[in-house]
Amino acid sequence: MKILHTSDWHLGRLFHQQSLLEQQQTLLQQLVDVIDEHAVDAVIIAGDIYDRSVPPSAAVKAFSDFVDQVAVQRQRPIVAISGNHDGAERLGFATNLLKQAKLHLITDLPECTEPVVLRDSETEVNVWCVPFHDPLQVNHWLNSECKDFNTAHQLIVDRINAERNGARRNIIVSHCYLDGASESESERPLSIGGADRVDWQMFADFDYAALGHLHQPQYKGLEHIRYSGSLMKYSFSEANQRKSVTLLDIDNTGLKHITQIALKPDQDMRVIKGQLTELIEQAKNDPHCSDFIQAILTDKQAILHPMAKLRAYYPNLMQLRKEQLEQNNAAPGAHAQEHLKKADSELIQDFFSEVHGEPLTDDQKTAIAQVIQRIEQEESES
Amino acid sequence: MKILHTSDWHLGRLFHQQSLLEQQQTLLQQLVDVIDEHAVDAVIIAGDIYDRSVPPSAAVKAFSDFVDQVAVQRQRPIVAISGNHDGAERLGFATNLLKQAKLHLITDLPECTEPVVLRDSETEVNVWCVPFHDPLQVNHWLNSECKDFNTAHQLIVDRINAERNGARRNIIVSHCYLDGASESESERPLSIGGADRVDWQMFADFDYAALGHLHQPQYKGLEHIRYSGSLMKYSFSEANQRKSVTLLDIDNTGLKHITQIALKPDQDMRVIKGQLTELIEQAKNDPHCSDFIQAILTDKQAILHPMAKLRAYYPNLMQLRKEQLEQNNAAPGAHAQEHLKKADSELIQDFFSEVHGEPLTDDQKTAIAQVIQRIEQEESES
Repeated sequence: MKILHTSDWHLGRLFHQQSLLEQQQTLLQQLVDVIDEHAVDAVIIAGDIYDRSVPPSAAVKAFSDFVDQVAVQRQRPIVAISGNHDGAERLGFATNLLKQAKLHLITDLPECTEPVVLRDSETEVNVWCVPFHDPLQVNHWLNSECKDFNTAHQLIVDRINAERNGARRNIIVSHCYLDGASESESERPLSIGGADRVDWQMFADFDYAALGHLHQPQYKGLEHIRYSGSLMKYSFSEANQRKSVTLLDIDNTGLKHITQIALKPDQDMRVIKGQLTELIEQAKNDPHCSDFIQAILTDKQAILHPMAKLRAYYPNLMQLRKEQLEQNNAAPGAHAQEHLKKADSELIQDFFSEVHGEPLTDDQKTAIAQVIQRIEQEESES
Repeated sequence: MKILHTSDWHLGRLFHQQSLLEQQQTLLQQLVDVIDEHAVDAVIIAGDIYDRSVPPSAAVKAFSDFVDQVAVQRQRPIVAISGNHDGAERLGFATNLLKQAKLHLITDLPECTEPVVLRDSETEVNVWCVPFHDPLQVNHWLNSECKDFNTAHQLIVDRINAERNGARRNIIVSHCYLDGASESESERPLSIGGADRVDWQMFADFDYAALGHLHQPQYKGLEHIRYSGSLMKYSFSEANQRKSVTLLDIDNTGLKHITQIALKPDQDMRVIKGQLTELIEQAKNDPHCSDFIQAILTDKQAILHPMAKLRAYYPNLMQLRKEQLEQNNAAPGAHAQEHLKKADSELIQDFFSEVHGEPLTDDQKTAIAQVIQRIEQEESES
């Protein structure tokens, strides 16, 4: 039996005020292609289908179209849990009805002890679905007094273990933060203060743990305890990650293979670094100009309208950083004061030559130095 | 075959800032009871399931619970269209999948030419579902140039008629405003300017027209062209309406019966009228004190804190009107001026006796008359 594990789609997410939905739709189409190519039997989505509890209607349509293609047209079951970004109640519309028609949306915590059973002629797999929860919700359900996510999740796994059926294979699906795993910048903390970490050990005994929340594809502790990673890069901190979906091959003796299948967005998210003129030269021969770009300028002097200049080549330049400026700002104490003071006249010189195309004359430099001095005097007297 | 026709639930609606969801849930439970009592085979909802395009999640849950009880537990199909209050795309999540499991949500206009077929051992009924639309949407779909709702709806009915199958009975479901039908205060206009009216004649040729939008149960033109009316009263203008659902009995020879079944809210919406003391006396023996109340006070004199006084008996007093004041405000021209002036001193007298429990003495009256006179003088000089 082949099962596709994906998570953290964040449909409807904005990136620097720009909708990513078109990108996301392309990638969902790639998932459908993977399902066809690899004859996938079922799909698991480990939470954060949407980016927020009230997703834009176009995001609802994108998920609806995916469901249509997979569960209706291809008759492949989808098993999904709600993540910390999803609105559980809203996502949970008509779940009992949808279940009859191959879409299993588990958004209500107590349902975690009733596995979704996936079957083919040889294999039976229990899929235990743990929707995102905080300790309070667990306490409310089990009348317990957990203070942290780990204790709470362990209680849930204990419940599941008590229900486990020896004859079937067992997959657990959860949206949680495994202690020691790598985070990216685009995840929203599950709780403030750090009591949100969960030990991987509680998942060791399952045939596979299909996890969501962390956006980098990775396993933790054991190879079968795994984050599929997000559908696409959602921050420039992920520029060097390779996003993928995870394909499991499982039969009645257990897990046979894990394969990571790369996802290829139309527009990548990249960081470029160099002097403005260098970057512009490179851009002229860059076949991927429509990528989402963060540019780090290493120029020492001030530049007029660098964003506009670079955007002429990279229309999706989303962010511009100036290395020099960041270093200056980072310099501490009196040394930094000196540094900044020195920068004043240099800044004016750079600005002048940028606008007029020629440097300041010595007379002009002297005049400017006097003005700066006068301003400083006035400031210290006031 | 027995079909229940309901519409205009407006789940999630606020009434004077108060949620009506508890009331609505009670009434949805009554619908389920009707389904059991009358062995209903299918339910038609003619639009405005929700009150707004992004309903509160509790409203989503209420509809989801209804779907659960009817389509999952009782295996009865539900056929619903989107109304002008519903967000068509959002409501349309996973419709193709839901269709397989007996929930037919028609939110996309071109689907109106593909009927939902209801069947029992003897009868086959085509249900033609026309989700709410404006002329622009029809023009976009059919490449037409309709300027008003009537022409647009006629085009749709023409399309449906072209697809009609002689062997089956035909029901049309639409969310529209029939010209000449009675409106309430709680409907939102379909368009500004009044080009939103539709002729009943285009529905004459169907076995039944299950309409939504107008909140008063009624038929127009012919008895089988009918509004079920809203789930409950949504304005005091509906205080005297009797809300109901409509039960059709149809077989392969055509429509046999139409029955209106009354809905009984826990809390009615009522208007009471009289002097404050009278109303309070009545309230003491009123078994329905928790009703939503609009009180019209006929007292001639001013009263201190009438809202608070009456709320002690009617906790859901939502609105207080003063007949005298409204008449005064309505009186036009110089006569009204005279009326208002005369009211000044009376108002003060009423206020005094309300606070002190005794009338003004003659001396006090004179003093007050002098003050009023002085104010008037100053006003006329300034």
